[in-house]
Amino acid sequence: MGSLPFGATPQALDPEAIAGDSRAVLDFLADYYRDVDKYPVQPSDLKPGRLRDLIPSAAPEWGEPMEEVLDDVRQDILPGLTHWQSPRFFAYFPANASAAGLAGEMLSSGLNVVPFAWAASPAATELEGVVVDCMGALLGLPPRFLFSGGGGGVLHGSTCEAVVCTLVAARDRALSVLGHAAITRLVVYASDQTHATFQKGARIVGIPPPNFRVLPTSAASGYGLPAAAVRAAADRDAARGMVPLYLCATVGTTGLGAVDPVRELAGVARRHGMWLHVDAAYAGSAAICPEFRCHLDGAELADSVSMNPHKWLLTNMDCCCLWVASPSSLTDALSTDPEYLKNVAGAAANKTSAAAIDYKDWQLPLSRRFRAIKLWVVLRRYGAAGLRAHIRRHVTSAEWFEKAVAADERFEVVVQRKFSLVCFRLRPRFQGDGAVDENNRKILEAVNTSGRAFLTHFVVDGRFIIRLAIGGAKTELCHVRDVWELLQQKAADVLQQ
Amino acid sequence: MGSLPFGATPQALDPEAIAGDSRAVLDFLADYYRDVDKYPVQPSDLKPGRLRDLIPSAAPEWGEPMEEVLDDVRQDILPGLTHWQSPRFFAYFPANASAAGLAGEMLSSGLNVVPFAWAASPAATELEGVVVDCMGALLGLPPRFLFSGGGGGVLHGSTCEAVVCTLVAARDRALSVLGHAAITRLVVYASDQTHATFQKGARIVGIPPPNFRVLPTSAASGYGLPAAAVRAAADRDAARGMVPLYLCATVGTTGLGAVDPVRELAGVARRHGMWLHVDAAYAGSAAICPEFRCHLDGAELADSVSMNPHKWLLTNMDCCCLWVASPSSLTDALSTDPEYLKNVAGAAANKTSAAAIDYKDWQLPLSRRFRAIKLWVVLRRYGAAGLRAHIRRHVTSAEWFEKAVAADERFEVVVQRKFSLVCFRLRPRFQGDGAVDENNRKILEAVNTSGRAFLTHFVVDGRFIIRLAIGGAKTELCHVRDVWELLQQKAADVLQQ
Repeated sequence: MGSLPFGATPQALDPEAIAGDSRAVLDFLADYYRDVDKYPVQPSDLKPGRLRDLIPSAAPEWGEPMEEVLDDVRQDILPGLTHWQSPRFFAYFPANASAAGLAGEMLSSGLNVVPFAWAASPAATELEGVVVDCMGALLGLPPRFLFSGGGGGVLHGSTCEAVVCTLVAARDRALSVLGHAAITRLVVYASDQTHATFQKGARIVGIPPPNFRVLPTSAASGYGLPAAAVRAAADRDAARGMVPLYLCATVGTTGLGAVDPVRELAGVARRHGMWLHVDAAYAGSAAICPEFRCHLDGAELADSVSMNPHKWLLTNMDCCCLWVASPSSLTDALSTDPEYLKNVAGAAANKTSAAAIDYKDWQLPLSRRFRAIKLWVVLRRYGAAGLRAHIRRHVTSAEWFEKAVAADERFEVVVQRKFSLVCFRLRPRFQGDGAVDENNRKILEAVNTSGRAFLTHFVVDGRFIIRLAIGGAKTELCHVRDVWELLQQKAADVLQQ
Repeated sequence: MGSLPFGATPQALDPEAIAGDSRAVLDFLADYYRDVDKYPVQPSDLKPGRLRDLIPSAAPEWGEPMEEVLDDVRQDILPGLTHWQSPRFFAYFPANASAAGLAGEMLSSGLNVVPFAWAASPAATELEGVVVDCMGALLGLPPRFLFSGGGGGVLHGSTCEAVVCTLVAARDRALSVLGHAAITRLVVYASDQTHATFQKGARIVGIPPPNFRVLPTSAASGYGLPAAAVRAAADRDAARGMVPLYLCATVGTTGLGAVDPVRELAGVARRHGMWLHVDAAYAGSAAICPEFRCHLDGAELADSVSMNPHKWLLTNMDCCCLWVASPSSLTDALSTDPEYLKNVAGAAANKTSAAAIDYKDWQLPLSRRFRAIKLWVVLRRYGAAGLRAHIRRHVTSAEWFEKAVAADERFEVVVQRKFSLVCFRLRPRFQGDGAVDENNRKILEAVNTSGRAFLTHFVVDGRFIIRLAIGGAKTELCHVRDVWELLQQKAADVLQQ
């Protein structure tokens, strides 16, 4: 591996070449995870263009040894990364990782099969069917979303992809009745807390941007989307000839971790024949614990549900589960059948069995990775009990942090915590304290530039708030205690100024 | 690793856990690649539902040792896979893999950063900017598609994603002038050889399906899309109030490896203000060799170009390069700016520099993998010379095969080979031989069910033809000789019946 293992032609898949390159990367990763706690979470040098000055701007003419490549990763790339796997990463939502997730990804990438259709790699598509059923059952989804109950699931790369697929299915179901010109009358409903991916998704599928209704939420509803507001908006739209098409309910919003009242929203969706999608990208993972399953109440009435094991369930990027009650609504909108994908033997087998799924018709692209084996390795390796313990460990740390914030009179918890996300801020020092937002911003910036933790913010009801999202595989209570100490310190500094 | 390395809570990222699980997978993969030539390329037992009967349908309550998981992969999953990395896989297009591609994927998955915005992991987005420029230069793309020349590139997961993004950009540029109701008048042009992903993509973005023009090709133009036909169709459409929007040119079509006349098509696109996309998903890789660059002639006049290193350039799934001449046309259509993604320090840095790219606005999803490091490791490890040798090795094998077919009077080459795809068939035995298609089908089925090779077919001008797509990292001339021998054998059997 040190010197080049090949002459003019790379022996790209020789077992020795694989062993050499891969073992060097494993050693690198073992070092990385030994030290990841010591890196500044966000790079200390935030100067755009830094890397372009450091590394060559052209591919080398001759291959280079893996050691040199890894030296450059160590010296030039690591110092410029934001370390999502640091135990001190509390920003956005987690994208956690694990030994099993990595091992699963290595199997996926190592076997490198492309299961776009059953015949293109039968066991790979069949494993996907099994694993989405397993995962759905773990979350307590009703049988109608499982293959075993007439529905079914698919692994996408992202929520956006899942959303676009369901929007296309809902849109084409409506347009098949109304005619294509009615696309300008289709309306999508969401709250001001719904993830931006829905607005982007609606635009992508051709819904006119003004037809995306962003309904306000408030503290009174815990920032959940009030069903009455959707009903009023949809009634009003329907009365003036618009077509209510699609309603997004979120379980665990990105800004605040709020939960929409899915059951009540399902009633409104049914009233107008709307497609109801439940986005549980982050909080869905918590539903593997019975004590959190209540937040998915009513999801059994939805048309589709999605959650991302790549966020909080130890599954390395990427992996998003989408379940639908009616697979044909997806495949009617997304199927293609070009000659070059037909398989003589496969087609015969396919026609005889619902067990032979062509996943290309459940997603946007044709090609796809063997993600199923990754999620399957995670489930097998940690088991339901191990995964529940993992979720509860973070929730317990979040409880501790929430109590600590509430006990410090300088701070306040902004919304009641439901999962592992705590939203808080420095209180105003007096009625009408104009500096409070600026002070919170200063604290956040001081924490982040210290390199000892990385958090992000949100703005709700015009107030700047700080978010602590716990979910790193290496994050323990000690790291949460540390960041709280750091926040208190920086608060004292800011208030003293 | 043998017994469980954890109690109730998985120590998911401990260096020991990573080493244990990953090394077991590496040993597994080394065995796999040692034996991959011996597996039936397509599974011998093509019975849907086989796997569901073999593996548990629920996640285990307690974690299981990695050995048990790998035993199940070996016993239950491998026999059901179609082995895309077999040196005897000649179906569809290749999705080849390499030691460096796997190592790069391990780095991507191991670091598990999520570079959706510059501030979310600066060096990861900067590396992507560098690597797409490197790759573009290797292909001989003009500076206007590189960041260094005012354009830019992005790594997507699939051509479909790239196509949907460019369709949305083109659509919204048109609708911003014409109003949204004009969406029913937008027209997309392609040939009967264009990949199905364009038709699906146009449907996804809300173009009415009847507005997708599939223009016929013929042997006379080598199955390339005649510019005159596009011009006539677009003129006709424009005259009746339709809006020519988007034209796809393909360099290396899926069925036959045909090449559209990009330069001439660019003239037609310009005449009607259409977006021109060049899809070089497979054959783009060949353009790293100067002798194949002629096929991209005219691409410098396009609005966007895409190619997939995950097909023929030793980059494990997934990796699709998209270059655009006008990045703002993409970002105008795909940008979002929700509060929870803003980064105080990042935003300040961002505003001052074009080097700080928020890739979320260049793609469909928000979240994304660190694909850049994978492609970068492949380029570094094999070098331009190594990659050219890899391409030429396959092309040389394809030349040999083409000659062998031409020299056997029972067979004929259907279209002249341009890259590493050979399209051929058994000749009709006499004028009007009604059995010729059926005989070709029988030969293909006999070869595939033998397990000794896997090929797919196509239908052109009503004739059933066989495709041999060479591109596996382990495929050598000896494997191509073997499959030719096998085809000759099966032909003799079929003709004897």
